[in-house]
Formats: sequence, structure tokens, C-alpha cells
Amino acid sequence: MAEPQNTNKRIKLDDVAYELIYWPGIPGRAEFIRLLFEEAGVPYRDTAKDESEAVSRVMALTDADNKGDKTNVPAIACPVLRHGDLTLSQTPNVLLYLASRLGLAPTQGNATYQLNQIVLTILDFLSNEVHDTHHPLGVASTYEEQKPAAKKRAELFKTDRLPKFLVYIQRILDGEASGEGPWLYGGKLTYADLVLFQGIHGTEFAFPKTMKKMRDSGKYDGVFKLFEAVGDRPNIKEYLASERRAPYSHGIWRHYPELDDE
Amino acid sequence: MAEPQNTNKRIKLDDVAYELIYWPGIPGRAEFIRLLFEEAGVPYRDTAKDESEAVSRVMALTDADNKGDKTNVPAIACPVLRHGDLTLSQTPNVLLYLASRLGLAPTQGNATYQLNQIVLTILDFLSNEVHDTHHPLGVASTYEEQKPAAKKRAELFKTDRLPKFLVYIQRILDGEASGEGPWLYGGKLTYADLVLFQGIHGTEFAFPKTMKKMRDSGKYDGVFKLFEAVGDRPNIKEYLASERRAPYSHGIWRHYPELDDE
Repeated sequence: MAEPQNTNKRIKLDDVAYELIYWPGIPGRAEFIRLLFEEAGVPYRDTAKDESEAVSRVMALTDADNKGDKTNVPAIACPVLRHGDLTLSQTPNVLLYLASRLGLAPTQGNATYQLNQIVLTILDFLSNEVHDTHHPLGVASTYEEQKPAAKKRAELFKTDRLPKFLVYIQRILDGEASGEGPWLYGGKLTYADLVLFQGIHGTEFAFPKTMKKMRDSGKYDGVFKLFEAVGDRPNIKEYLASERRAPYSHGIWRHYPELDDE
Repeated sequence: MAEPQNTNKRIKLDDVAYELIYWPGIPGRAEFIRLLFEEAGVPYRDTAKDESEAVSRVMALTDADNKGDKTNVPAIACPVLRHGDLTLSQTPNVLLYLASRLGLAPTQGNATYQLNQIVLTILDFLSNEVHDTHHPLGVASTYEEQKPAAKKRAELFKTDRLPKFLVYIQRILDGEASGEGPWLYGGKLTYADLVLFQGIHGTEFAFPKTMKKMRDSGKYDGVFKLFEAVGDRPNIKEYLASERRAPYSHGIWRHYPELDDE
């Protein structure tokens, strides 16, 4: 696995190979994908940053008339990645495709599946389930219409699901397969570490008091050490401080103080 | 992609290459995986069928002391697949690993990701979201403790998410990439078709009246034609009628009449 180099920053040319299509104004699920490009220093066209067409590009994906093309099936939702003739959706699927190409995962073998397993689990807990804490009944209804249910779901998330997840990640880090250093697999930074970083970063925004308790408990020191190590990567640090990083607002990770711990 | 042959039925030998670890007594998430083995006619050891050790095998996976081994990270939940030195979890990950090995997906290229995209979407809607109709607040609380929330979540599932999903699958089938015949991709049966079959089968058990309305609407004829075509496959037919197929009960797909349509 090649050590990724930040060889090429913020080039926005017509011939950039990768195009990412997502809603404007929020980090959202696309943020997992952006972190791979940013860490690898590989340029990508981010349609969310194009004010004039960001929304229409997303809407076109799920238009009833969009039935894909000869080799690509249509998408049900963004993020969508376009790369040459390929159009891909589903966050873990896009990550799987990109990781080996960006030097953030091996190209084949057992490790491919080990990393995919870890990434699917992180996305289940820190993206899908955190989202459902504010929308437990469905996205066709507003948060305000489902506040009591959200309160209960958030409670079970904080007391049951979140500790279960952190215990699991700490088990991975304590295990032999994670190797030396702070990383999740094979003693090297992989895309799984970037995905975990974003999941924790978003969950700390949504539940700052709960996450502080988790951090202060000392039970998951490996998890938070990994989080710090990713945040210290030069390309990640530069990205987080840049205007390219959208602030959290009404996406996956939302901060409703009433859902957080006292 | 080789046409799978049912060369080897129900052989339960010590040297069977594949072992599936799952809870006994329910189809559950493992059922997606079983259908691949059954269609391909490839023998597999199913620990759920071993009364004396089924539960202990599952419990051992998530034991706090289980930190995986030199190359395998531990699992947070079953189903788990063991194959040689490999131990894998996360349903879509196990399916991705198996599909090409069982002749139910190409071994590489664009199609790998197209199929993974479809499968992830089917599992999101017809496994995870159907599960959440009876447990919208969390699995640490019983259905009886969350009935009003379940009623609302089921309502939004039936009126918003389920039609959205069926429209999407019909879009795929109407698109060029699905090719000729009833299948989802490339004009050939793939594991995505088997996964869709199980998702619809389970959802018809959970919501028989709702699904009948969807079927009778005539809007999703391709989807239900595919469902019938998979059910007519000789190996699938034989499996469904066998004792190996566990009945639905209190797993992912549950039938609570009060959550179904009137």
C-alpha cells in the first residue's frame, strides 16, 4: 500500500478524473468520501460547491426518467461518484471503489473485506443510527413532529448502541490484526481510519456531552487516540481548516441539546 | 460468469469449506447468505442448525475477550462466515465475498460495484428499515414498549419508503444495464436477484396486505416478475420447501397485523 502523497491540491480543471455529486451546504455522507480525496491529495470535482447547479445535479440523479445507462444502474440517493464511464452510489460502495485507487487500502485479498466490514459497521452506528436519533420515525416527517420518539431513541443510542460500538472498535484496536500504531488494520493508515474519524467528529458535534463522558471514561483510549492521529494528518488538518469543509447543520449530524446528556 | 450447478447437496462433512454462524430458529440476515449457497448448490455448514452449540457459537463471536486473530478483526454481530483462514462479518460484505466465488457475480470490474450498490440498497430498505418498523426506538427495548412509535414508523415505511424503493428497483429493471430477461443486472441471474427475492419474501410476510396492494397496483410488475422467477429456480424451490428453511418468527421480518394495512 503506497503512502499517499499530497501532490496535487485543489485543482479544479475540466479533466479532473473524479466527480462527487452531493447536496450543498452540509458535510453529510459525502464527507466520508471527501476525506479520502483530501488525505490522498487527489483532486476531485465537488458539485456541492457549485452554487448554480449543485441542487439540480442531485435532483437529476433520482429523476423518474433516469434509468442509468448501458453499464450503470441509476442511484436512489447521493452521494454519487463519477469516474470515467462509471457512475456509483451507496457510500460504503463508493469508499470501497476509491480506497485502493487512492492508496488507502490494499487492492485485493483478505484485508479488502476486513476493511469493508469495519467501514460498514462504522457507517451503521455513527452515520445511519446517529441520523435516526433525530428521525426515528422516518424522513418524511420533521424532527419537531417526532421529538418524543427522538428523545427515546437518542437515550437508547447513548446508553446501549454507542457504548456497544466503542467497545467493539476498542476490541479491534486491542486485537492482533490492527498491528502496531494507532490504526484499525495492518499497522497502516487506511480509509477505515478516515471513516472512523468522520463518524466520531460528527457524533461529537451531535452529542458533545455524551461523547465527552465516553472520552473521559478511559475505556476507549485507543479509539480517541486514533481520532486525534487522523486529525493531526497534515492534509486532513489543512482540509478541516479550509472553506471546503462545510459546517454541520441540518444533515446527518445535528445538535439538539435536548437529545444530548445533561 | 459460470452458470452455477447444483452439484452437491446437503453434504455435512468436516471438510466443508464454508461455515455460516448465526442465531438458530429464524431466517434473519443469514438468509440472504444461505440463498447464495442454495442456488449455487455449494455445501455449507450452518451452525444455526446445530441445536447443541448454535447459541454458544454466536455468543463467542462477540465475547469481550474475542479480539479476532492475526489477520481477522472480531465481529460486532452475526452473520459471520468462516472460509479457510478468513472470518468475515457484515451481511453485504459476506455476500460480496461469496458471490463471485459461487458464480453469482463477475470476479472483477464495474459490475462488482453495480451489484454491491443494488444489494446495499435492498438491505437498507427491506432488511434494516423493515426491522426498524417494529423497533424504531432501539433493540434494547421490546416491541410492546414501543408500539405507538412502531405504528408511525410503519405508516411512513408503507407510504414513503417502500414505494420509493419499488420505484427505484423498477427503474433499474427498465434501464439498459439490467439487460434482457427478468434480472437486475447484465441479463443474468446474480446474487442481487437472490437478495431482492429474500427481501420481498420477508416483507410480504411482515406486511401481506400492503405488499398485495403494491403488487396489484401494476406499477412494479418487473419487480414481482423477478421475485417469481427466483422462486421458480429449482434449487431455490427445493430449499424453500425443505426443513432447512426456518419459519419467520421474531427476527427481522415480523408480522404484527396492526402495523400492516387495513
